[in-house]
Amino acid sequence: MKSIKPLREKKDTAILLIHCPDQQGILATVTEFLNKNNGNIMNLDQHVDRVEKIFYMRVEWELKDFSIPADKIGEYFDTLIASKLNMNWKIYFSEDVPRMAIFVSKMSHCLFDILARYTAGEWDVEIPLIISNHETMRPVAERFGIDFHYFPVNNANKEEQEAAELELLKEHQIDFIVLARYMQILSADFVDHYPNRIINIHHSFLPAFAGAKPYHAAHARGVKIIGATSHYVTSDLDAGPIIDQGVTRCSHVDTVKSLIRKGRDLEKIVLSNAVFKHLQRKVLVYNNRTVVFH
Amino acid sequence: MKSIKPLREKKDTAILLIHCPDQQGILATVTEFLNKNNGNIMNLDQHVDRVEKIFYMRVEWELKDFSIPADKIGEYFDTLIASKLNMNWKIYFSEDVPRMAIFVSKMSHCLFDILARYTAGEWDVEIPLIISNHETMRPVAERFGIDFHYFPVNNANKEEQEAAELELLKEHQIDFIVLARYMQILSADFVDHYPNRIINIHHSFLPAFAGAKPYHAAHARGVKIIGATSHYVTSDLDAGPIIDQGVTRCSHVDTVKSLIRKGRDLEKIVLSNAVFKHLQRKVLVYNNRTVVFH
Amino acid sequence: MKSIKPLREKKDTAILLIHCPDQQGILATVTEFLNKNNGNIMNLDQHVDRVEKIFYMRVEWELKDFSIPADKIGEYFDTLIASKLNMNWKIYFSEDVPRMAIFVSKMSHCLFDILARYTAGEWDVEIPLIISNHETMRPVAERFGIDFHYFPVNNANKEEQEAAELELLKEHQIDFIVLARYMQILSADFVDHYPNRIINIHHSFLPAFAGAKPYHAAHARGVKIIGATSHYVTSDLDAGPIIDQGVTRCSHVDTVKSLIRKGRDLEKIVLSNAVFKHLQRKVLVYNNRTVVFH
Amino acid sequence: MKSIKPLREKKDTAILLIHCPDQQGILATVTEFLNKNNGNIMNLDQHVDRVEKIFYMRVEWELKDFSIPADKIGEYFDTLIASKLNMNWKIYFSEDVPRMAIFVSKMSHCLFDILARYTAGEWDVEIPLIISNHETMRPVAERFGIDFHYFPVNNANKEEQEAAELELLKEHQIDFIVLARYMQILSADFVDHYPNRIINIHHSFLPAFAGAKPYHAAHARGVKIIGATSHYVTSDLDAGPIIDQGVTRCSHVDTVKSLIRKGRDLEKIVLSNAVFKHLQRKVLVYNNRTVVFH
Repeated sequence: MKSIKPLREKKDTAILLIHCPDQQGILATVTEFLNKNNGNIMNLDQHVDRVEKIFYMRVEWELKDFSIPADKIGEYFDTLIASKLNMNWKIYFSEDVPRMAIFVSKMSHCLFDILARYTAGEWDVEIPLIISNHETMRPVAERFGIDFHYFPVNNANKEEQEAAELELLKEHQIDFIVLARYMQILSADFVDHYPNRIINIHHSFLPAFAGAKPYHAAHARGVKIIGATSHYVTSDLDAGPIIDQGVTRCSHVDTVKSLIRKGRDLEKIVLSNAVFKHLQRKVLVYNNRTVVFH
Repeated sequence: MKSIKPLREKKDTAILLIHCPDQQGILATVTEFLNKNNGNIMNLDQHVDRVEKIFYMRVEWELKDFSIPADKIGEYFDTLIASKLNMNWKIYFSEDVPRMAIFVSKMSHCLFDILARYTAGEWDVEIPLIISNHETMRPVAERFGIDFHYFPVNNANKEEQEAAELELLKEHQIDFIVLARYMQILSADFVDHYPNRIINIHHSFLPAFAGAKPYHAAHARGVKIIGATSHYVTSDLDAGPIIDQGVTRCSHVDTVKSLIRKGRDLEKIVLSNAVFKHLQRKVLVYNNRTVVFH
Repeated sequence: MKSIKPLREKKDTAILLIHCPDQQGILATVTEFLNKNNGNIMNLDQHVDRVEKIFYMRVEWELKDFSIPADKIGEYFDTLIASKLNMNWKIYFSEDVPRMAIFVSKMSHCLFDILARYTAGEWDVEIPLIISNHETMRPVAERFGIDFHYFPVNNANKEEQEAAELELLKEHQIDFIVLARYMQILSADFVDHYPNRIINIHHSFLPAFAGAKPYHAAHARGVKIIGATSHYVTSDLDAGPIIDQGVTRCSHVDTVKSLIRKGRDLEKIVLSNAVFKHLQRKVLVYNNRTVVFH
Repeated sequence: MKSIKPLREKKDTAILLIHCPDQQGILATVTEFLNKNNGNIMNLDQHVDRVEKIFYMRVEWELKDFSIPADKIGEYFDTLIASKLNMNWKIYFSEDVPRMAIFVSKMSHCLFDILARYTAGEWDVEIPLIISNHETMRPVAERFGIDFHYFPVNNANKEEQEAAELELLKEHQIDFIVLARYMQILSADFVDHYPNRIINIHHSFLPAFAGAKPYHAAHARGVKIIGATSHYVTSDLDAGPIIDQGVTRCSHVDTVKSLIRKGRDLEKIVLSNAVFKHLQRKVLVYNNRTVVFH
């Protein structure tokens, strides 16, 4: 599709994500390290879990004028700070655009929502491919000019199909995967290749109505609010760390069909919220829960 | 407490609640019955469950000029209409003010919310007594001038205490019971005395986190939204027909303590919403679900 | 675009929208008329405004077995009922698929949302054309296989351009227009051709921040919630009857830019909600307010 | 009223609120100052307004082991840090319980909500007195054992009554005032005595429907959502810095009366949220907007 993307805002920053045991002086130490080396801080968020005694931080600073070369920052930070404070850390650079694969089955609403944002330049991401266990969404992919790969999956071929998918993802240097209503359970082995890097949308307010047919279950229970939940996929079905949730009111007037219809809007917004937070490197995971910075 | 109640608006109406197998002409039949007998309809709500094929209706009309005497309406309606259409029906009169008992344990927020509305004349109800398994709320009850009855409950005395409570409720002609964070499970036998007439508030978004300590469970699961649920009590714990639900956002910043704090506001509003709908005779129950008219 | 639409559910129904001065027996009269002529009622909603004394009703029934031919229903209803009760009424048939035109400027989010729903068969509608005062959205229109017409507008040519647009709309038998973030004010004369048939999305919680740059104004005022409003267009700017509104929380952390980003999601959902209600013939307008049935 | 307050959790902390022109190193400087003097940080929140280039911070630390005596902290901080960085700052100590006055007119819902929280020990505050321009709420005040002062106000006596009120507030060492639906406009002179220390609740989603009778205006406009807004009072009516807002859905079914009823619940919750944030010293004001930390 002829792009309608605006020119991307040029930004030359680094982002550091940190979590470590809490102790005095971490914040001062990190900000001093950046200040002393002329790193102009653009954003800083930190959180201390006082119960688990964990310190979390996200800091983004300008690389222009920063006195440590980009490819040496990790080494310096690790030697001078992280190793001493027992930190778990990752560094990202704004010039490295993340590469995302979409998995989809037969429903189009989440896929369209993602591709619309992509086309409009809302997100700083590349989407080189779409994978599906059905052919249904091929025309949508083609229309947006994205490669579409069909991998029908059944009990007999699941292992080999997943292997082929992994090969393809590797070949395209995929950083993370978005399950846009992909109605196949990924094997634990597959999931292990992308820890906290597969984002799913579940069509219920988890932990209520995990598993299949949540709108039917919600209707049968007579709830007055329905929800949707985006989470990182773990080997434990619908039990991974929650990134975002959304809800909407319903009533006795709603049928299963109208719940499904209302739910579609929830699902697409909640999934896209989660993808956006992930793209901004604002999600940290610890103990199966997330810290999601503003 | 010296009342700050406004004079009650005088209203002389009857309310009919109906549910029955759906079929052509029910609505016309009922409205014609009222019209022909000079019953000026004030409010009419109806709902048809197209899947279960059930017709639900609530109609309120003025008794002034109605040609059937109030004490005969039931008989006439049953003979002329209800028995022919296999209707389940109830009639209420606005001049009969419902009598409600509050059960409470140690927490004051729901109790205060109810008593504040009562004192301000928000609700058309009488509250002759408060029952508790603790002495903690006695000063609150006394302050509002309502009899407080202390029934400590343990495994050994539960049966006899419930019997005594039932006796007291009967004596005071109690129509329905509100569990304002009453932390004792009522026996199936007790519940059977007040079918769809005991309203509970559960401090979670049911069916998620049924049972004890839902805020602890919500925190452990890392949810991004918490909720509260008001429902009629059945012998199945936290599984009765839901009347209303409310939710509020939370985040990684929240502790169990702050969830409990935020939850209190949800609980009191959601419980009071349910009580108000019940008082207005706007809740119908069928198959463990509710129809709640506007 | 190769359609991914499911086969449309076949439905053969008529929908009657009514409003009239309230009086005894309207509901019985209308339902009797349908029942006597073997019209099986699928949905019935009614509302009485007790202050203004106006009765509103929407009823949908099956035409199969209905004893009055479809093309005679209007005449019969008018003669037998409507004229006697001073009714304002309209009839619609499910087999007549409404035809909608989209007006858009440079932003794609509402347009994509509508076209995604259209392609997925969510709505029972035809969209023969898109009109814009910019070329920016042409590639999107082409991608979805919809005719795109470019009408640049300035003060000098506005009258003639609107005349040409009206001609085009007439030619394509357009029933109603959706302004999907169309950033030109339509003249009163243009609006008069489509009374209560032009749906706009305004990017604020009206009546707050009517007019230009509402997100800038919201940021300057320091609000903690932003909103979006869909409404029918009248000659009075941003003051037409409101169909739906949506809101989302914001905080001191938000910039104008992030409000605009969050607002886009609100706008597209709130606009699509309004279009869906309009398509279902669930919106009645009276005195610059709407009745929107469930 | 016999208190049902739990024993207050003992806490011995200081809270520093800061805003100043943004520049490199502020965060490091402040945290270092605390760390070097053995101040264990309990909570730290900071925000940078990148447009206005203002830095905001709230930090709370334990006084136990802090090497600067409490009564010298201000002086030291000012000399060593604040004066150099052009900071606007305030310090608070957890052992100083704030003293709050309530102004109320005839409606009880906000008053009851505040007094219920006070009685239950939800808030760390003293409420020595209630002031009203009507006698209506006297029984409520008496019931909760709080002094009630009646100051009828009219155009002729306003100046002298406000002077008397100010005298009374001074005598009781009142730190801040909560207008719990107080239906009198305070003079600019009165407001000047408590800058950013008078919290009002306005019964609309500001800036929509400022001034009198907002629910009537909302009904006339046909909005689909109503709101309430808590804000600091300035001399500009309903235009002071917003602390919190809340909303709830409404529809064509709502009358002015039902909007008022729904609004009461919004008002009391939104006002209490604002008071709680203020009590926690989490609100900073700059340029008629607020920073409200979590």
